[in-house]
Amino acid sequence: MNKLQEIIGAIGPLDRPAMEAAQARQNSLTKPPGSLGRLEEISIRVAGITGKARPCCDRAAVITMAGDHGIAAEGVSAYPQEVTGQMVRNFLGGGAAINVLARHAGAKVIVVDVGVAADLSDLAACAGPSIRFVTAKVRPGTANFARQPAMTPEETMAAIEVGVRVLEEELAGGLDIVAVGEMGIGNTTPGSALTAIFTGKPAAEVTGYGTGVSPEGLKRKAAVIEQAIALHRPDPADPLGALAKVGGLEIAAMAGAMMAAAAHRVPVLADGFISSAAALTACRLCPAARHYLFIGHKSQEAGHRAIIEALDMQPVLDMGLRLGEGTGAVLALSLVQAAVKILDEMATFADAGVSGGGDS
Amino acid sequence: MNKLQEIIGAIGPLDRPAMEAAQARQNSLTKPPGSLGRLEEISIRVAGITGKARPCCDRAAVITMAGDHGIAAEGVSAYPQEVTGQMVRNFLGGGAAINVLARHAGAKVIVVDVGVAADLSDLAACAGPSIRFVTAKVRPGTANFARQPAMTPEETMAAIEVGVRVLEEELAGGLDIVAVGEMGIGNTTPGSALTAIFTGKPAAEVTGYGTGVSPEGLKRKAAVIEQAIALHRPDPADPLGALAKVGGLEIAAMAGAMMAAAAHRVPVLADGFISSAAALTACRLCPAARHYLFIGHKSQEAGHRAIIEALDMQPVLDMGLRLGEGTGAVLALSLVQAAVKILDEMATFADAGVSGGGDS
Repeated sequence: MNKLQEIIGAIGPLDRPAMEAAQARQNSLTKPPGSLGRLEEISIRVAGITGKARPCCDRAAVITMAGDHGIAAEGVSAYPQEVTGQMVRNFLGGGAAINVLARHAGAKVIVVDVGVAADLSDLAACAGPSIRFVTAKVRPGTANFARQPAMTPEETMAAIEVGVRVLEEELAGGLDIVAVGEMGIGNTTPGSALTAIFTGKPAAEVTGYGTGVSPEGLKRKAAVIEQAIALHRPDPADPLGALAKVGGLEIAAMAGAMMAAAAHRVPVLADGFISSAAALTACRLCPAARHYLFIGHKSQEAGHRAIIEALDMQPVLDMGLRLGEGTGAVLALSLVQAAVKILDEMATFADAGVSGGGDS
Repeated sequence: MNKLQEIIGAIGPLDRPAMEAAQARQNSLTKPPGSLGRLEEISIRVAGITGKARPCCDRAAVITMAGDHGIAAEGVSAYPQEVTGQMVRNFLGGGAAINVLARHAGAKVIVVDVGVAADLSDLAACAGPSIRFVTAKVRPGTANFARQPAMTPEETMAAIEVGVRVLEEELAGGLDIVAVGEMGIGNTTPGSALTAIFTGKPAAEVTGYGTGVSPEGLKRKAAVIEQAIALHRPDPADPLGALAKVGGLEIAAMAGAMMAAAAHRVPVLADGFISSAAALTACRLCPAARHYLFIGHKSQEAGHRAIIEALDMQPVLDMGLRLGEGTGAVLALSLVQAAVKILDEMATFADAGVSGGGDS
């Protein structure tokens, strides 16, 4: 049994008794029952995920998987490919959006080079209590999937296992909740390709502007995806095959980290479009993983709606974001923390001597 | 000139040069322009509010105004009136939802007795670095506005001035951003009455279940409001008169605090329905106050949509909350803080040596 089979085998159902205990406690707290809406729902699901009636989500991290894309050669992005490596350096310098939002949320940032084209080996020593850099380059960017498969099956599996390993290493150091994001110039293209394959929707419907291509660029992007799907004929029932043919190294690593979180009963937040494409891939590999996932926010990117519908999940936030890196996920992570603190820290009607609990 | 006239006179327009500088900086940061959506918009408005191109919102507080309502005698609430005072004790004990969420956001909690029916004088000494209790009881609950005006004009003005004073006292101690919420059994009824008056909509359309009345209770509540409006004939063009006739002490105090925040260029977050009814009242007294206000969240209470439309503002969050206390506002406050940190702390393309800034 390989590592992926082992992880998938460990993903079980939610803990119903913990959820029932959490629901009962929510109803006893000093507020009208149900009046905290989605915060109550979220807290109850986290109880089911963790198996604890009063879970704690204090130890938080965001994992940002970075990888490059051969498909960028087709002119599908507004930014040049070297930006991926430059942004990894920016993450380690603390100056990117994900650094600012992770500091605000009190979350550790883990940056993983699972396939950046540039040489980042000089960054290998970067580590601290609030940041960690992981060198795990499976290959320096995928192949151009307009012409050949993005990755071999072995590379795909290796990238998934990078995600599993990084999650398990963080867990060993103490981790209660995790957000998963990405950096990779050109990666809305594989994101849209996977979305088209898994939802059965036409490429044009699930392809968007990404970081800001022109209207002509958008047409070219959709055409590139359509032609690649015609070339590779990926089978929606073979998620690993689809991932190898038109996916990406960071997408595979995100899917791996998400499945590992589910296997270890850690609540995991997808970010926006690309991260949710990884979540959809993970859920096609193992449908039970869905119960452990939250979608952090509703992205402005066109294809996100199709993924949200396919997963039948309501994103936590809707702030008009379309950046990636894990930014929306880490904002939502703070709301999940708030939700579990409500469940754990609020006084009950009985504790506080407040009238009206239980009869309304 | 009285205190209210002075405050209203001090509420000016947003600082356009600060907003332009903030917009230019947002466009220079290491992300595609506009890709942080509402976070960018919020940060730019806060620049205009504070007059600073890189504002700081670290010192945060939530003010929870508490008052009782004579109208509760008409059976409009699912909870007995004594719950208002019991909940004030719960706030000071740290066990209510607002305490938990304010701790999570790092915000100080200020609880104000502006008109609770119960005697809370034993709590006067409660104060600490993260909590403060203000005794400023104008009267022990309003009169039953089904029969007589809720307050005299003098009481209304006194309650507004309590809000102004509390805000100014906090400002003197250091305050960068403030959320405003309430506690008052029965107060969705005055909230709906004010909403009907200021929006011109029928009472039935802007009256909801509050903390959870029965369907019959809901009908009775709408009828009580309709009859009270017929009895008092409030003039929508006389906001102070409407507030006195069918308002509440905590609603007047919230409006006062919101106007004082605007006058002192402090960003202020309304919470859900009742708090937004206070915001609407404040904006009828002084339309320029609107620029300084955010609506923290979209409440589940029926009348909130009418207020959101009348103010033409998009709530920051939509989490299905309907609790009050300032809970939605303090969750949103953390997102406003995140937005201004993005503006202040992110690296520019030039700083970080990342390609592609300014040409896409």
